[in-house]
Amino acid sequence: MRRHYATIKDIAHALNISVSTVSRALRDTYDVSADTRKLVLEMAAKLNYKPNFNATGLVKNSTHNLAVILPGITNYYFSTVFTGIQEIAYSHNYNIILYVTNDDAARELNIIRNLSFSSLDGLLVSVSSQADSCDHFQEIIDDGIPVVFFDRVAAGIRTSKVMQDDYNGAFEATTHLIANGYKKIAHIAGPEGLTFTTSRLNGYLDALRKHGMPIRKKWIIHSGFTQECGENDLEKLWKLNDKPDAVFAVNDRKAVGAIVTLKKKNIAVGKEVGVIGFTNDPMSAIISPSLSTIAEPAFEIGKKSCQLLLNHIKKKNFIPEEIILPGKLIIRESSIRS
Amino acid sequence: MRRHYATIKDIAHALNISVSTVSRALRDTYDVSADTRKLVLEMAAKLNYKPNFNATGLVKNSTHNLAVILPGITNYYFSTVFTGIQEIAYSHNYNIILYVTNDDAARELNIIRNLSFSSLDGLLVSVSSQADSCDHFQEIIDDGIPVVFFDRVAAGIRTSKVMQDDYNGAFEATTHLIANGYKKIAHIAGPEGLTFTTSRLNGYLDALRKHGMPIRKKWIIHSGFTQECGENDLEKLWKLNDKPDAVFAVNDRKAVGAIVTLKKKNIAVGKEVGVIGFTNDPMSAIISPSLSTIAEPAFEIGKKSCQLLLNHIKKKNFIPEEIILPGKLIIRESSIRS
Repeated sequence: MRRHYATIKDIAHALNISVSTVSRALRDTYDVSADTRKLVLEMAAKLNYKPNFNATGLVKNSTHNLAVILPGITNYYFSTVFTGIQEIAYSHNYNIILYVTNDDAARELNIIRNLSFSSLDGLLVSVSSQADSCDHFQEIIDDGIPVVFFDRVAAGIRTSKVMQDDYNGAFEATTHLIANGYKKIAHIAGPEGLTFTTSRLNGYLDALRKHGMPIRKKWIIHSGFTQECGENDLEKLWKLNDKPDAVFAVNDRKAVGAIVTLKKKNIAVGKEVGVIGFTNDPMSAIISPSLSTIAEPAFEIGKKSCQLLLNHIKKKNFIPEEIILPGKLIIRESSIRS
Repeated sequence: MRRHYATIKDIAHALNISVSTVSRALRDTYDVSADTRKLVLEMAAKLNYKPNFNATGLVKNSTHNLAVILPGITNYYFSTVFTGIQEIAYSHNYNIILYVTNDDAARELNIIRNLSFSSLDGLLVSVSSQADSCDHFQEIIDDGIPVVFFDRVAAGIRTSKVMQDDYNGAFEATTHLIANGYKKIAHIAGPEGLTFTTSRLNGYLDALRKHGMPIRKKWIIHSGFTQECGENDLEKLWKLNDKPDAVFAVNDRKAVGAIVTLKKKNIAVGKEVGVIGFTNDPMSAIISPSLSTIAEPAFEIGKKSCQLLLNHIKKKNFIPEEIILPGKLIIRESSIRS
């Protein structure tokens, strides 16, 4: 049998005050004195009182649960964002209910359809890569559930969003390749239709345009985000008659796939073909030659997203904010000619 | 305002049957016909009925929430275990509330002390590395909360446990180094006092003993689990007059630290000094020279742990089980002399 935990009644009885006073003291309402509140909190600690968030959820419409929906957790970027989210949630006594979609839009929809909104205060979401329609999120927001998007955001939906500066990061990465003497720069991109991959594509294109570099449709390949996708994309590029002499990858895992494949072809990465990624995954420092990249502020994105969500929860009419955090160019061996 | 979701009453009204019948149909009790259940489920879908797990938790003592406590989520092993846990939980309609301790025993204790057990059906735990006392888990189990340990288990506590075969994996890794001609084999270990690091240490020691290899106290270094710890451990070993000619690392991240440091010293990894790890982190295939290792069944461990916990939850007097899954030797470049 489960042990009986102390209730509000036990605290009231021990202090010889009313249950209602104890309840108001625990909720820190304006009409309870600081002294009484102190007494109640001390007795609550002494009696090992634990709030039943199930019950408080039903009464107060506050459950102390936040849901986080992520495309994946086994990659560095998302696990680091999650760690940032968790830091803020932990310090505010919120639980995190984590859902992982495995980049599967149908699973994302199924998770959303089955969420129990009476058990949740709000939602943090990075949308799944194939998700082209986001009506299900609009419905939740219309229902009054606070939602904050991060990283992979749904462009058409008006709510708070936290992103890294994908456009400028891609612009800077491409400009760096141009400055190092590469002239035929390909882009191995993510799936079409996601805001952040489109931003990175546009940053790449504008950098080429600004420097009068050739833009070839065949040098832009859309596929998934894995190392294997990077390997396949590079194989496709190397079947062309007019091969590129550098590759900007949408993320580090794809860049690692490109480097691994170039090495198999005995092509000198850096000297012959430049490669740059995006993320600053620990792998980028370990692979040889080491991978130049744009470092993403993953931990900060997690923290900011969770903080914004808590603001939404506290203030019903919170005006949505869009926060864009800058990345940072990290120059390593893979983009240096000499 | 939040939209009004359909209730059991709405379903009963729409079908012109009793609320009690709807409730029993939704719970799939034996006394409701398959036809009625089908009608009720169809109407529930049509009306967008969502069960309120808060309320069902209060009534049924079942919340459909599992808590998972992990030392970290940014490394490959734990994120993969979590993905396995999530697969099983998702298919059984359970939510996962995730807590990350950052390998901090005080934080682990704080999380446990503040858990709201009325909102949880059970707990999956991998204990934090410095945790030498585990009384707080015993208290929870005594309170009747089902707990399953995985990977980093608390040895003295009688509950279900899921582990990889740490002893035999370490024995096999060390024997592999011996078979490849290395004669002075060091072990860069984890912190003392954890079951799994002790098992790996014992597997290493027994392999040395079996083959009459020297055992030197100075060749066994205990520290944390990060790449940086591996770098520092190797520096310590290389300050000795009698340097080892091979290193067995407690995990791949420490092995990567050892390789990076050996390369800085211009020591040929493999040819001069052998290195083997434990995990099969994707990094082990990418680093050059690539890292030999013992592959851990991380995804399977996650799935088995969650399945065991669900068994505990269903059956109050479930007899604890201990499941040990074998690892697999993966031979790459770092442990080959030629």
